[in-house]
Amino acid sequence: MPATASSYSITMRLHTAPDHGVVGTVATGIAAAGGVVTAIDVTDSKHDLLVVDVTCSAADEAHAKELVAVVEQIAGVEVHKVSDRTFLLHIGGKIEVSSKVPLKTRDDLSLAYTPGVGRVSAALAANPEDVPRLTIKGNSVAVVTDGSAVLGLGNIGPGAALPVMEGKAALFKKFAGIDAWPICLASQDTDEIVKAVEMIAPGFGGINLEDIAAPRCFEIEARLRESLDIPVFHDDQHGTAIVVLAALTNALRWVGKELADVRIVVAGAGAAGSAIVTLLLAGGARDVVVSDRDGTLSADDDSLSPAHADLASRTNPRRVRGSLQEALVDADVFVGVSAPGILDPAWIATMADQAVVFALANPDPEVDPAAAAEHAAVVASGRSDYPNQINNVLAFPGVFRGLLDARAHEVTLDMLLRAAEAIAHVVTDQELNASFIIPSVFHPDVPKAVASAISGKPRD
Amino acid sequence: MPATASSYSITMRLHTAPDHGVVGTVATGIAAAGGVVTAIDVTDSKHDLLVVDVTCSAADEAHAKELVAVVEQIAGVEVHKVSDRTFLLHIGGKIEVSSKVPLKTRDDLSLAYTPGVGRVSAALAANPEDVPRLTIKGNSVAVVTDGSAVLGLGNIGPGAALPVMEGKAALFKKFAGIDAWPICLASQDTDEIVKAVEMIAPGFGGINLEDIAAPRCFEIEARLRESLDIPVFHDDQHGTAIVVLAALTNALRWVGKELADVRIVVAGAGAAGSAIVTLLLAGGARDVVVSDRDGTLSADDDSLSPAHADLASRTNPRRVRGSLQEALVDADVFVGVSAPGILDPAWIATMADQAVVFALANPDPEVDPAAAAEHAAVVASGRSDYPNQINNVLAFPGVFRGLLDARAHEVTLDMLLRAAEAIAHVVTDQELNASFIIPSVFHPDVPKAVASAISGKPRD
Repeated sequence: MPATASSYSITMRLHTAPDHGVVGTVATGIAAAGGVVTAIDVTDSKHDLLVVDVTCSAADEAHAKELVAVVEQIAGVEVHKVSDRTFLLHIGGKIEVSSKVPLKTRDDLSLAYTPGVGRVSAALAANPEDVPRLTIKGNSVAVVTDGSAVLGLGNIGPGAALPVMEGKAALFKKFAGIDAWPICLASQDTDEIVKAVEMIAPGFGGINLEDIAAPRCFEIEARLRESLDIPVFHDDQHGTAIVVLAALTNALRWVGKELADVRIVVAGAGAAGSAIVTLLLAGGARDVVVSDRDGTLSADDDSLSPAHADLASRTNPRRVRGSLQEALVDADVFVGVSAPGILDPAWIATMADQAVVFALANPDPEVDPAAAAEHAAVVASGRSDYPNQINNVLAFPGVFRGLLDARAHEVTLDMLLRAAEAIAHVVTDQELNASFIIPSVFHPDVPKAVASAISGKPRD
Repeated sequence: MPATASSYSITMRLHTAPDHGVVGTVATGIAAAGGVVTAIDVTDSKHDLLVVDVTCSAADEAHAKELVAVVEQIAGVEVHKVSDRTFLLHIGGKIEVSSKVPLKTRDDLSLAYTPGVGRVSAALAANPEDVPRLTIKGNSVAVVTDGSAVLGLGNIGPGAALPVMEGKAALFKKFAGIDAWPICLASQDTDEIVKAVEMIAPGFGGINLEDIAAPRCFEIEARLRESLDIPVFHDDQHGTAIVVLAALTNALRWVGKELADVRIVVAGAGAAGSAIVTLLLAGGARDVVVSDRDGTLSADDDSLSPAHADLASRTNPRRVRGSLQEALVDADVFVGVSAPGILDPAWIATMADQAVVFALANPDPEVDPAAAAEHAAVVASGRSDYPNQINNVLAFPGVFRGLLDARAHEVTLDMLLRAAEAIAHVVTDQELNASFIIPSVFHPDVPKAVASAISGKPRD
């Protein structure tokens, strides 16, 4: 039976006669069909009617439908309504704006609004350096997307991307106390995107670019870093890179190898792949080979796009040419940020001993983690139902917390290295093992450790 | 002694020997100097030291300094620090973003973020009409400014304007449950502003333009109304107009005159003045004369700017030429949205009997309301320390609540008229008098009455 994913969670509202045994019959039926009952609530009771909400997890949408069919067939039970818990959660959006100051009386209004606020604005006009201290600019981040590369869905546009951006904002507040607001842009033109972010920058302390497709994302980030005096960070690039480096640091610690000595193959030369390569090289890696759809990227290949040629110029010192399978022979590390199923588990057996395999394609990895574990010493993926989940939530909250705390104007490579080191070091020597190379996203020490590493200031 | 304005509220931190009488001495000293003690807190106590925070209200900044000087002279008391309550309130900003959904467990994350959120985004990509229902777009408003016309401060730029926009957002939440976010733009170029708002529109249900100077504000609003499918509303124009019309409706009700019969003089041909004129005419006024810096606007004057010429073409049927003083002779109503002190109280005596005077220049009105009341039957201003405060807070929250509830695509003149009527009607015949022509901003019926009037839907 496949693992039950909580995201396929439904609530069935059942009408039934008040029968002591009916709830047990329903629960048994659901379990027999492979579902997991997670909650039962009797929401109404009349002398001839019981209304019961049964919440259960299914493996996927099709399985959920099967569960509903099973319950419908139970005598004396009528399935009145089926609600999908994920969709229910999203009704009306997932974030809100609140006032931090009282607004109950005329006195309150005269301080928070006119005329009191006028004195604050006048003071800021005279002393603009005080804006971060007296406004949200000291704690706000814009989560900016054009909807062109959202999760595994691709180009779905700004409106459909909004739930993902809201989720990001919710996570910024939950893990780092940051006030983040989604900005979903109406155009995918590089110049228009750059200009729009420059226009909105005055009210924000940092810019988190999100789900913007390569190669446009590179130019957009570079141009904004040039023109803005607040930090700009494309999480799909650098957040992923930070967590990959942290995980790899610990994986190599476990298998007893040095980053400078290992042969690394990175599959996927898009946003994440490029940033991972850059950070690994900055961290001391010397032998990185990048493989994309058409095989390995090598500097002696004239047919590469400008972005790929740049990658090739900085990697593949042995000028390896060929397929991913060929590049993996005797490699120590595989990092996949590409597509599902492109890595045959058998190829892992041809890697060096104590191979490390990070299969991070989302939502379905390059190789099934269980199959990879038969040949690799350490396996990580993006999935939450396996050990060693490589999750950007470990990085971006603490990164921006540190940037805001330091009133930083830019993001440096050195900050990313320190952030990776901080995440890696949260895992103690006692805790470290093949199934625990990075902390859980809920580990309370991670955000502040990352923030301190970024800002250079201790954070309690 | 001038009325004490709470916005000049300071907290003095005093160090003194533990002396039972010292607090009384301090409070007496402050009162004798015209201040009002509003709070006393002993924050620390040692055997030889008492630390006392004394909060008091002064009439203005200069008076506050006098109060500090008085306390400094009290024997045995050291003024250790003086904090301004208004500024203290603003530290770190006045609004925040919160998650509305739980984020405590992996299960929570898998619904609110990946992978569950991916299903919602996929569904929205297939059915974009569901975006307002499943995201914040159904409840969000961008508060957009370029900082060019902020309160009485003028052109202070986007950073200094931010506290005002935060206050606006806090009020949107307080009075209408709306999630509003400040967008402070880096340019004052009309094209760039229009483009920037078009770019950010996908994530918002409405646009509130704020503190953008005339005449650029007219073109910006008009072009955005043309290009966007969400409503666009410049509050300084239409919010002011709505509340003015509501107040005038009731003032005329009180003095027993009809809007269609009265002679109205509007001083100030900027954003507010233009919108007030438009709404008064739409509401049935037939004799409106606009006066600006150079006197009355008349259609037979070739020297007018395009915006003024447009106003002139729609007003001043009697082609009155001359100064404000001359225009006021025998006028029934004066509405000032111009500059402080331009209206001599003696001129009100030359107006018709039962004159109505709205002196709305902010923060100092065209005429002192008490002086005006000697000659006028009904006086209103923007000040909170006089009766009949004309405050946009009566309009914009309910207006946007109604627009969002109706999933409106635009704002119509008819909506504004209905909103004005709704506000006016909150004041019952029994309550109506010369000092009560509009409801208090805290009247619980106002936002929903306005929202229902806008949307056509009842709101509990």
